[in-house]
Amino acid sequence: MQKAQSQRELPGKAASEEHPLTDHRVDAMIRVPYDEIQDTLRRVLVREGFADPDADLCARLFADASQDGVPSHGLNRFMTFVRSVRAGIVDPRGTPTRVAAFGALERWDGHSGPGPLNAHRSMERAIELAREHGIGCVALANTNHWMRAGNYGWQAADAGVIGICWTNTLPNLPPWGATRPRTGNNPLVLAVPRPPDHVVLDMAMSQFAYGTLDVYRRRGERLPVPGGFDASGEMTDDPATILATGRVLPVGFWKGSGLALLLDLVAALLSGGRATHQIPPEPHLESGLSQVFIAIDPAGLPGQATSPDEFVNAVLAAFQSDDEEVRYPGARAVRARREAATEGVAVDDDVWSEILAELQ
Amino acid sequence: MQKAQSQRELPGKAASEEHPLTDHRVDAMIRVPYDEIQDTLRRVLVREGFADPDADLCARLFADASQDGVPSHGLNRFMTFVRSVRAGIVDPRGTPTRVAAFGALERWDGHSGPGPLNAHRSMERAIELAREHGIGCVALANTNHWMRAGNYGWQAADAGVIGICWTNTLPNLPPWGATRPRTGNNPLVLAVPRPPDHVVLDMAMSQFAYGTLDVYRRRGERLPVPGGFDASGEMTDDPATILATGRVLPVGFWKGSGLALLLDLVAALLSGGRATHQIPPEPHLESGLSQVFIAIDPAGLPGQATSPDEFVNAVLAAFQSDDEEVRYPGARAVRARREAATEGVAVDDDVWSEILAELQ
Repeated sequence: MQKAQSQRELPGKAASEEHPLTDHRVDAMIRVPYDEIQDTLRRVLVREGFADPDADLCARLFADASQDGVPSHGLNRFMTFVRSVRAGIVDPRGTPTRVAAFGALERWDGHSGPGPLNAHRSMERAIELAREHGIGCVALANTNHWMRAGNYGWQAADAGVIGICWTNTLPNLPPWGATRPRTGNNPLVLAVPRPPDHVVLDMAMSQFAYGTLDVYRRRGERLPVPGGFDASGEMTDDPATILATGRVLPVGFWKGSGLALLLDLVAALLSGGRATHQIPPEPHLESGLSQVFIAIDPAGLPGQATSPDEFVNAVLAAFQSDDEEVRYPGARAVRARREAATEGVAVDDDVWSEILAELQ
Repeated sequence: MQKAQSQRELPGKAASEEHPLTDHRVDAMIRVPYDEIQDTLRRVLVREGFADPDADLCARLFADASQDGVPSHGLNRFMTFVRSVRAGIVDPRGTPTRVAAFGALERWDGHSGPGPLNAHRSMERAIELAREHGIGCVALANTNHWMRAGNYGWQAADAGVIGICWTNTLPNLPPWGATRPRTGNNPLVLAVPRPPDHVVLDMAMSQFAYGTLDVYRRRGERLPVPGGFDASGEMTDDPATILATGRVLPVGFWKGSGLALLLDLVAALLSGGRATHQIPPEPHLESGLSQVFIAIDPAGLPGQATSPDEFVNAVLAAFQSDDEEVRYPGARAVRARREAATEGVAVDDDVWSEILAELQ
């Protein structure tokens, strides 16, 4: 384990960043090999009552998030997850069951199981349906926070299919024109395969995550663009003010506000589960989420004149060709993963110590 | 026909507006009955070589857009559409044919036919597939501008299914970090049925349409939020400056930039058609677009405890309940449609005169 360099990146430079600035304490990072992380998390989860294969997969999904540069939904969130198991919010033995099927469309019940496992298995099932029908859709009710949304996009792309998925959340986003959180930030994922460096968009409907606001606040920096409202309803780029009011800004103002609503509606209607207004507003009680997983397998269709990979490369090249640096969604994850492969995964040392203490 | 009241609405009041401020000349509006509009457009299209049923449907789709308060992609655009027929960009006799099928996933070729007709027929086919498989997807290549995106969402919702569709466009949006337009504004539609007042989101990936910028410029007003960059790369709310640089802002800055890229990639890959960088950048030559139409029919799945309509109403009520006015996507269309039913459709009188002159 060695000290990692402090990483500071403004979202202003990226075409689409999954979670810019998610590191809470950039000066206290260590590097830990992926396998060591995965094995440690696995052992903690077994102690918490997870079946062996479930612990293995769940540990991997947490490790993947940190490996790909999204520690806020990886290791930094692991002990919160463990506490939600202990509190009975997450049932470590809850596994999804199929409630109804209609061709390529299925409804599953997550039985309050671990969110990452339920989500992974739902995307797995959507991929199976896509292999059979060209397109498949699994709607999942009664699940928990799936942690890093992008994981399920990478999963689809690794299987060679286009993946589209989203979740609703507790009410954490005031609709445009409102002062109180009435909708969720409802992360949306779109993934296109281009092995091994897929193109994966992972975007929540709030302009900045609360964690990101907190990072800027600690640094004493303003946001690169407005991120919310002050108490008098004026837009501001001061993270401390926004954290105090809780009035974060939807992506694209009225547009993201509407998209968040539609994602919630479709997820709840298709899954037969809860919409955001039915989800407990306290973060530590967030449960009963609704999610949608769509996979599309173009394998049965004839391709472009060029191969799909070449075609994706050509589109990215056109997107990026300019006089300034333009990054595509997924580029940050690819870079972080490469770095992790040689140097180890960047981990907050306090976070790591807390996890290790569980095994002593 | 009577003079309509001037309508002025700031997007700041709406949760998600389809096309705020699309009226070019708010002081010169007349009211014309829907049927008179539809019949007039139909007769013009027959003269341009459209088959009778095609002319009928195409006229309806243009009239619907104006009726629902989106004249920029309704009557205001009709003569541009006619000119694109005359220029050979749009083939009035081009009809979509199926190129490949793989279960619930199909690829169609639009043969440079009229965009609104190709899109309507593709959504129609996606709905058929959804009735059979629960979910259906049609990817359409070689089509033209579909005019008002929301039409195909209303179409799906009218059929009682959830509709998701999007199109790519010519390069008209600089990716975040770039100075030149390298991606499209790629409108995205999500629709949820709640007869007769469906919830329909219709959002382009640019924060403001060029037409909207122009309306603000003519009024000498600033935008309610930043809409683009000036020549030195500073963000600005001055519409004239943005129109001069062409550097419009993606929705949510880096986020909408990434979403636009993914929508383009998925549409081109699934349809086997063109991506944005392969589409002519001149607006009057825009052609060869790629589109995706997804329909999901939840009829085969058991419902919530409440009916779908009641459930949608409950979600909207929670979304809207606050101390300020919050509108949901589709509300503006519903209101405009009701008004049009009693008072006639609001039409720019110069636009209407130009269309009428075609028949003299």
